[in-house]
Amino acid sequence: MVRGLSSKPIVLKLGGSVITNKEKPLTPNLPAIQRLTEEILRANVALIVLVHGGGSFGHPIAEQFRIMEGYKDPLQILGFSKTHQAMTKLNKLIVDSLINHNIPAIAVQPSSCVVTKAGRIKSMQERPLKKMLEMGFVPVLYGDAVLDSEIGFAILSGDQLVSSLAIKLNADRIIIGADVNGLYTADPKTNPSARLIQHITLEELRKLENKIEGSKVIDVTGGMFGKMFELMPAIKHGIRAIIVNAIKPNRVYKALKDEKVVGTIIEKDEIIEQPN
Amino acid sequence: MVRGLSSKPIVLKLGGSVITNKEKPLTPNLPAIQRLTEEILRANVALIVLVHGGGSFGHPIAEQFRIMEGYKDPLQILGFSKTHQAMTKLNKLIVDSLINHNIPAIAVQPSSCVVTKAGRIKSMQERPLKKMLEMGFVPVLYGDAVLDSEIGFAILSGDQLVSSLAIKLNADRIIIGADVNGLYTADPKTNPSARLIQHITLEELRKLENKIEGSKVIDVTGGMFGKMFELMPAIKHGIRAIIVNAIKPNRVYKALKDEKVVGTIIEKDEIIEQPN
Repeated sequence: MVRGLSSKPIVLKLGGSVITNKEKPLTPNLPAIQRLTEEILRANVALIVLVHGGGSFGHPIAEQFRIMEGYKDPLQILGFSKTHQAMTKLNKLIVDSLINHNIPAIAVQPSSCVVTKAGRIKSMQERPLKKMLEMGFVPVLYGDAVLDSEIGFAILSGDQLVSSLAIKLNADRIIIGADVNGLYTADPKTNPSARLIQHITLEELRKLENKIEGSKVIDVTGGMFGKMFELMPAIKHGIRAIIVNAIKPNRVYKALKDEKVVGTIIEKDEIIEQPN
Repeated sequence: MVRGLSSKPIVLKLGGSVITNKEKPLTPNLPAIQRLTEEILRANVALIVLVHGGGSFGHPIAEQFRIMEGYKDPLQILGFSKTHQAMTKLNKLIVDSLINHNIPAIAVQPSSCVVTKAGRIKSMQERPLKKMLEMGFVPVLYGDAVLDSEIGFAILSGDQLVSSLAIKLNADRIIIGADVNGLYTADPKTNPSARLIQHITLEELRKLENKIEGSKVIDVTGGMFGKMFELMPAIKHGIRAIIVNAIKPNRVYKALKDEKVVGTIIEKDEIIEQPN
């Protein structure tokens, strides 16, 4: 893999619903993993950090043992172990796929280097990560069951991790590979007049937040608002984010190459045309 | 798993030659892993940290790409990824076995939380580990390919990790599960008059070191001296270590229970009889 000149990494999130079959527990979507590996290989960006979601690996076990509520019952302890082990299993499939394509990927377990406080990243050992990037490796992290200084343990979402990593590693930009085309003006599954938002500023996003806080029931964006909320700190930091549909071939590739692609760009201030 | 009252953890090392078939690449010794899991379950100690070696998983790939020599050639980069991935594969087998026996094990990747300097541990995020123990989890670490601030990357041996963890976690004692009965007065494989050393102090061990440094060629202890050298910092710290043969059933169990067992006890000063 030829390394480019850019010194700022791209943080690429691959959604759990993209890389797993969400309907079947512990079932990876191997063709999607294979295709996305090839898109990453072809794009050949200099510095990249991957973060993937849990999909049907982490979520069902985490929900069964209510890991996201923190420690309440000794029975959860083994459940935490099982949740974490399911995530390492999915992570292994992704890293294996990358290595098989000669991409020097390294599995990085968030639970080994992060402690949260009430579910928010509090302490993180980032020196290994920085050194990995410096050496030309591709670190692969994931949403994980982590230890928590206040509530015992918690679920650290891939989205929170993406935002935090982007800030810590001074990322060039964030690419969110989702199972939808981007952020909509309404839920496209129920509202036929829903329109894809191509550009949005932090201020406009905040207005959308207020709108949702008012209704408190429906996420008008079609389930994407929680993710947006997690991305806000990185965007506030001046890091551009783009949401693309990773189920559709070549969208992640185009986003990696910084080419024009169907999706939603989120930026701090007014949109500035990006040179390609 | 009922938790005892002890607040000091035991650090148990399972040698790579015990848990893998050293003659066949990437071949675990599943019956040994199963038996040792059962010994750990039966012993039911309050706080325990496991560290395992690489055996036929890590070593052949690490040697092929000369990872232990540090970064010298871009071709090593993918080799480092492969070494690390092979170790996570072995680690997964151990953690799966523990979880299948209802032991709440958590895989902890040294490469995610440690950076070495010229092969020695320089920086380590130990907060997740301490919190895991506090919560009743069993962290499972291993000798790993890690990033290095001076030479790019290095091999962090399980033995160096054991010693460092024992000090950082204020361990009660260290148990080294090896493929030999303990430390000998000579190499038992070549010298029929070789005698098992049952007790040895740090000072006596240092004399043995001088003896070896004089000859510079043969490790008179039958290959165990390198391990002893790595343990010295912990022993100097007042942490007792015992080497037992983990291939022989019940030796690890007895060591965990602090019962009388064939092996070599290493202590800082004169040997004090241990109450059983």
